[in-house]
Amino acid sequence: MLMPYEKSLEILHSHIKPYERVEKVALTQCLGRILANDIKASENQPSMPTSAMDGYAIKFEDQDLPLKILGITPAGKMPEFKLEANTCVKTFTGSLMSEGSDTLVPVENVRVENNTLFIEKKVPKGFAVREIGENYKKGEILLKKGTKLNYSEIALLAELGFFHISVFIKPIIGVLSSGSEIKDLGESLENPAQIRSSNHIAIANLAKNLNCDVRIFALLKDDEKDTSKAIKTALKACDILVTTGGVSMGDFDFLKKAIKEYELIIDKADIKPGRHIKIAKIDEKFIIALPGFPYSAMVMFNLYAREIINAWLLQPKDYVCKAFLQGNYKKKTPYLEFVACNVEFKNGRILANLEGKKEGSSAIINNLNNKAALMIAPKECEILENESLVDIIFMP
Amino acid sequence: MLMPYEKSLEILHSHIKPYERVEKVALTQCLGRILANDIKASENQPSMPTSAMDGYAIKFEDQDLPLKILGITPAGKMPEFKLEANTCVKTFTGSLMSEGSDTLVPVENVRVENNTLFIEKKVPKGFAVREIGENYKKGEILLKKGTKLNYSEIALLAELGFFHISVFIKPIIGVLSSGSEIKDLGESLENPAQIRSSNHIAIANLAKNLNCDVRIFALLKDDEKDTSKAIKTALKACDILVTTGGVSMGDFDFLKKAIKEYELIIDKADIKPGRHIKIAKIDEKFIIALPGFPYSAMVMFNLYAREIINAWLLQPKDYVCKAFLQGNYKKKTPYLEFVACNVEFKNGRILANLEGKKEGSSAIINNLNNKAALMIAPKECEILENESLVDIIFMP
Repeated sequence: MLMPYEKSLEILHSHIKPYERVEKVALTQCLGRILANDIKASENQPSMPTSAMDGYAIKFEDQDLPLKILGITPAGKMPEFKLEANTCVKTFTGSLMSEGSDTLVPVENVRVENNTLFIEKKVPKGFAVREIGENYKKGEILLKKGTKLNYSEIALLAELGFFHISVFIKPIIGVLSSGSEIKDLGESLENPAQIRSSNHIAIANLAKNLNCDVRIFALLKDDEKDTSKAIKTALKACDILVTTGGVSMGDFDFLKKAIKEYELIIDKADIKPGRHIKIAKIDEKFIIALPGFPYSAMVMFNLYAREIINAWLLQPKDYVCKAFLQGNYKKKTPYLEFVACNVEFKNGRILANLEGKKEGSSAIINNLNNKAALMIAPKECEILENESLVDIIFMP
Repeated sequence: MLMPYEKSLEILHSHIKPYERVEKVALTQCLGRILANDIKASENQPSMPTSAMDGYAIKFEDQDLPLKILGITPAGKMPEFKLEANTCVKTFTGSLMSEGSDTLVPVENVRVENNTLFIEKKVPKGFAVREIGENYKKGEILLKKGTKLNYSEIALLAELGFFHISVFIKPIIGVLSSGSEIKDLGESLENPAQIRSSNHIAIANLAKNLNCDVRIFALLKDDEKDTSKAIKTALKACDILVTTGGVSMGDFDFLKKAIKEYELIIDKADIKPGRHIKIAKIDEKFIIALPGFPYSAMVMFNLYAREIINAWLLQPKDYVCKAFLQGNYKKKTPYLEFVACNVEFKNGRILANLEGKKEGSSAIINNLNNKAALMIAPKECEILENESLVDIIFMP
């Protein structure tokens, strides 16, 4: 009996150790990286009351009177003037408010004659003044460990004065594709029985999308001794070694044999595609042996390697959600199926459909094009009906 | 009267010329790049009938008889044997089917004795045979110009034998942040009236997310002559020059003046934040003058610069959709508002909420953290009610 998918994930997770590898990266280079510690506000922002508009800093109660303009406070300069009764200071967006002022009258609301201000349209108390800590207060946790740094988080780090940021080191994913029929990028095919390798570059790019570095190893012919040696050597240079091909029922499936030298933690699962999947470990490293069909390999990488990588990098499983299936889907196998689907956002609803998806073998490489997602068809059911809620998985 | 947002977009688009800059990039380096031409299948895939499993290539009508095993066809080799009646060839996943065979019996279904095959579990005609062109047919358009290349599209290009790919050259976005109060990354603040620049790095990273290259120019003090010169110089090195600060009502808002040397196509819009936005053009280049508040600058970049970049790179506006608002939202201004919101996918529905979003000034830099999106609050309405359908914009 094949292992249920959920059980295989449970076993996998029981073997994942915390990942504590951290490096410093310049703020200008950290787009997309994962923060390795919490970030606290070291100061109030703003640290002093600040003008949010161009206008005049006044005392609220003076609005009905002509006010003497004491001078100006350009942005970036400390205010030079202290407000007494019936005075004001010209103040700009981003300038500090002068001592004694509590309200900003925008330039659109006033008239100036002979250095005297007349307020023609009054404002409420505190208008256009950014109070101390309006944005954030000293000691507040602003970004949590595990945050993926995008434009806005990086802007905040810049404002906070950080330059050298602690992020998780990218795990290294090694890719070792096997099969005597595959030729590498740029090589020519010698006969119609050969095909060009696509798995290695597919897996490499999936790994890059998941915040990993990548080593693509030389393509492996179907040879028992070479296979065993290639795995040993490759393991030295990566944290997760992903192999493709050589795991099914053929006479030349040497990967299946070679992986048995390691601690096999998952040996087949009750899923389609990819039921021949094997996962082994050695120390804190993993070997994930995927089938050779491109669709299977890409889907399986997403289902298993992504679990390890995301656990290491503290990433949430926010890429799984429910969608309304459009049209019926009749299951093809008795397994839990992962079916390439299109996802559409329409009138506030998430829709999944199979338009244009070929339901052939797992060799169909282009079913995952155009931002395809995966629909999960449960083991127990035979038909998923139109408008039923299905689980979908966004690919990275 | 301020220009309506829709009108401003219309004007902007009327000035965007087709972008035809194309370069060749190695397949190993093209993740995330935009394809600059259609890709056709140069051959059928598979090009000959191919086995989808490990087993025996047979004639369908021979299943009841003992079959003589003629030999094997390893993957990658041309078949050596031609099937006569009552014969078969051992055939593996990815191997070509032998001439005269039409069906693959999996290894699980058979028994072998003295080089003779006995089929214990029959299969339908054509079982596990991948027919010519199953995946794609010669001449079929597989990827369209404008496709963003992700793992799967790149794998397909590898399979098709491409190595050097035509992609759009990344447009160059220049960023010129201004304000006498701002200090650069790594500089120390001299007084509490100064703040650290965050706009330049925020805009730079937004641009990177949109498939652009970036030039960050030196921060600009509030000086009329310097401003005019800096814009001229910067324009030489970029396709879109984005400035921040200096466009509102202050005495030191020199950017507002400097930009008038160019053909001003948009001068303010009826929106919040960012109503002071100005867009000018010279030849095929654009200058986008954004407000200095970080929230405003990031949102406005997304609303305007993204339109130009996506038009150039043929990207669809698939980042706008409807969501169900959770809770009421009371509008703060008479303008069309773009409000930072959280988006959640729940039970097949897209939900937008404002939890944890500060409704202060446009200086709130961290409202766009954690994958925030923008909710559009229409000009005409005062309250958006709980569970109403609102438009949201995903940030890049």
